Amino acid sequence: MSSTNPHVVWHNTSITRQDRETLMNQRGCVVWFTGLSGSGKSTLANAVEVELHKNGIHTFLLDGDNIRHGLCATPKLLEPQYGETFSQRFGLGFAAEDRQENIRRVGATSQLLVEAGLVVLTAFVSPYRNDRERVREWVTSKGKLGDFIEIYVDTPIEVCEQRDPKGLYKMAREGKIAHFTGITDPYEEPLKPELHLKGDRPLEELKQEVLAFLKQRVAVG
Amino acid sequence: MSSTNPHVVWHNTSITRQDRETLMNQRGCVVWFTGLSGSGKSTLANAVEVELHKNGIHTFLLDGDNIRHGLCATPKLLEPQYGETFSQRFGLGFAAEDRQENIRRVGATSQLLVEAGLVVLTAFVSPYRNDRERVREWVTSKGKLGDFIEIYVDTPIEVCEQRDPKGLYKMAREGKIAHFTGITDPYEEPLKPELHLKGDRPLEELKQEVLAFLKQRVAVG
Repeated sequence: MSSTNPHVVWHNTSITRQDRETLMNQRGCVVWFTGLSGSGKSTLANAVEVELHKNGIHTFLLDGDNIRHGLCATPKLLEPQYGETFSQRFGLGFAAEDRQENIRRVGATSQLLVEAGLVVLTAFVSPYRNDRERVREWVTSKGKLGDFIEIYVDTPIEVCEQRDPKGLYKMAREGKIAHFTGITDPYEEPLKPELHLKGDRPLEELKQEVLAFLKQRVAVG
Repeated sequence: MSSTNPHVVWHNTSITRQDRETLMNQRGCVVWFTGLSGSGKSTLANAVEVELHKNGIHTFLLDGDNIRHGLCATPKLLEPQYGETFSQRFGLGFAAEDRQENIRRVGATSQLLVEAGLVVLTAFVSPYRNDRERVREWVTSKGKLGDFIEIYVDTPIEVCEQRDPKGLYKMAREGKIAHFTGITDPYEEPLKPELHLKGDRPLEELKQEVLAFLKQRVAVG
């Protein structure tokens, strides 16, 4: 068939993850920070990203700031545009089922970002072991072993509560927030995280530890 | 406070979209292909991505292949791991509400990929005007005008049905698929797409037209 025949069968050629990684000269992966609210995981993830970026690594950071109004919006945020039925079904609150779906969407999106070749950093409490394990399985099943790096930012709850950067512990203690991890909801510690950091230490030290680990494991930085 | 004091207030420094675009030496955007099943939008999006990639542009392509098992999985896919209640609530079928949420999640993820600095290509039927307009608004409200480029692959349904690459039209005609766009469900044509392509033409011609447009609009390629 001639190429000017519009009915010619079109063959799909696709760009692969490997093509993208080659162009970026790096290996994609997910660096998953987990820990209590106030543990410092978000600050640490940001600090690590800054350092990777300085070293020419293409990165992306997922945290509450960039998903809670979009990908994982609350019912209240969705309702004006989508109506009540829709927003009650798909909007996410803080009940166990909602948190599960929240982490599932974040995990699915992280995998896509890895497929794009990026070093993805995520900073979510992600309190349930099962949910984190499912993300690990999903990411590695679509890619390869080592694509998912779990970093447990293990900061004593007393320290987190003392820091209380958003005043959430105070509100939880006053009963104004239901389902608050560490107070009224459980945090299930990782059993075998790739990195277990005692979080009650200077940021610089934590950052260097993460960077050293990443350098060794994914040859970045 | 000394930097060795673990209770020092940590300041967040963040990498911005602009930082990432500077490192990538490109401008991120969403190139949204819409059209009937069989219109050729997926093949065209792939062909455009290959060309952009050859030119050193960092890209990503979202289509059914990489979202239908993860980000926008069906109830059936979710059920074994998540149970019935969860999968009925969050899993996506083909009813209008499900399609809305499908496009909403894809739009939210596209915006994140743009934030990462990438040129994102999407290939979804996305039959409802409202849903596409909401993605446009979301992407540009988080970024800037011109971040969303809608390309209407306008192929006569007779041609799509004759191609029928997945045998879906046949099944829809036989009543085996409910909610099939163009047969039992409407396709709402874009009123003001950035590019309106008559799809019944050689792939090479369509590809060059898209590339010429992107070159002019987002200074890539």
